[in-house]
Amino acid sequence: MLGYLGPEGTFSHQAAVEWSGGACELRQYSSMPAMIRAVDSGEIEKAIVPIENSIEGSVNATIDTLALEADVYITGEYILSIKENLLVKKGARAEDIKIITSHPQPLGQCSRMLKEEFPDAVLESAASTSAAAKRTAEGDGSVACIGSGTSAELYGLDILKPDCADEKHNSTRFVIVEKNMSKKVTDHDKTSIAFTLENKPGALYSALKLFADASINMVKIESRPLKDELGKYIFIVDIEGNIDDASIYFALDKVRRSTGYYKFLGSYEMKN
Amino acid sequence: MLGYLGPEGTFSHQAAVEWSGGACELRQYSSMPAMIRAVDSGEIEKAIVPIENSIEGSVNATIDTLALEADVYITGEYILSIKENLLVKKGARAEDIKIITSHPQPLGQCSRMLKEEFPDAVLESAASTSAAAKRTAEGDGSVACIGSGTSAELYGLDILKPDCADEKHNSTRFVIVEKNMSKKVTDHDKTSIAFTLENKPGALYSALKLFADASINMVKIESRPLKDELGKYIFIVDIEGNIDDASIYFALDKVRRSTGYYKFLGSYEMKN
Repeated sequence: MLGYLGPEGTFSHQAAVEWSGGACELRQYSSMPAMIRAVDSGEIEKAIVPIENSIEGSVNATIDTLALEADVYITGEYILSIKENLLVKKGARAEDIKIITSHPQPLGQCSRMLKEEFPDAVLESAASTSAAAKRTAEGDGSVACIGSGTSAELYGLDILKPDCADEKHNSTRFVIVEKNMSKKVTDHDKTSIAFTLENKPGALYSALKLFADASINMVKIESRPLKDELGKYIFIVDIEGNIDDASIYFALDKVRRSTGYYKFLGSYEMKN
Repeated sequence: MLGYLGPEGTFSHQAAVEWSGGACELRQYSSMPAMIRAVDSGEIEKAIVPIENSIEGSVNATIDTLALEADVYITGEYILSIKENLLVKKGARAEDIKIITSHPQPLGQCSRMLKEEFPDAVLESAASTSAAAKRTAEGDGSVACIGSGTSAELYGLDILKPDCADEKHNSTRFVIVEKNMSKKVTDHDKTSIAFTLENKPGALYSALKLFADASINMVKIESRPLKDELGKYIFIVDIEGNIDDASIYFALDKVRRSTGYYKFLGSYEMKN
């Protein structure tokens, strides 16, 4: 059983279908924390969770739940290329369109195209891309929506303009989350950890020096608030390599001993 | 003329009023990028812009506009303690409440209290805290809302439960943005810069080493996507000290020469 962020027809749904290749039963969740906690409690085996978008950045709810709350591991990642499409009721034409609806985010991502090609259409925010697709399917052809290819299939809509976002390089990185860590080792793995530091000069530099001294390449670093006061952070770092490798293991052990809170989030195959 | 994120009655409005002490005329904007661009173009002198919340983390739209788009400087900061309140129509009592409405974020921040003390009330999302306050003022006393003290004053509401959020330590850091950099120097200043790095092992470590070698304390580091592809980031770093100080000036000059894109965002008095 694989959890994904519903409803049906979202890019998370598409990622779940593509990653599993139809080999898993899917179950919808309404938030990232709920889905990750369902893996933690054993309600589902795995979940595929969005963690980073190339335009919007990190998905904070995912990062915070993995770093601070749930006792689960990242066991893999999957990169989905995000292609927004202008969808209409079957048979409708561009000149029929009076209203264009979607979730505010995809509307924003297509705003230049919409302004140039549909200057007279009214843009209306919807609660979700699925709600927008449903309204388009039930309308008289004057309502169009922005949505995924999966959404077009599910609601029987025509794709009037494929890949119509202003910015063409849009992709989302998902992580696969399981209760137990992955034992698989490849030659292009990545390891994620989270840690806090004492609030003293040079603390982060000293932690990163442990990686540099072991010739370990850092792929990503980010900070998230610890939620108790301004200026206190937890760092989430991705490095190249698998904890199965002795040099990685010993470097991480030094990091663990020199930091405050420390959490190993998993070693898994790197996809980008 | 001081720009702030409207509508009236929001915490941004409260920050603008408190910071300016009534000495500036205020102008509302509907987004952070629009407000920062208005400073850049000279439409307004200054803006007070939310940049970080102690629970939610960074305000990405602010960071991205300052780091990549607008030609303006941070000249100061202001910390606002965020206190949510349960507001009712004048004279209404707790037992009258059937519906509690607000923007989803304040509703979320009070969710434990609402579940415990108002288990039978229906929670309804509103487009803004102002829309929720307006509905409360116009209702028959059965609608309550979550909002700021400023909102209670503006809409003539009673504060039924002051400071009612689940998490009491909630504050937002605002920055003051102007077209020209601040010339004021104090003994507790902060300097913000943004830079990109070559995608090679140890690049970030080498950049941070320049600060460590000059005994400069880093207060904050964060990464934001460069928006063209996954895995490319711009780093935003806050350090202690003013660029007016020679050791800071020379260290930043080394950072500038060793990084790709580099932008000095300003030196200003540190408030927390």
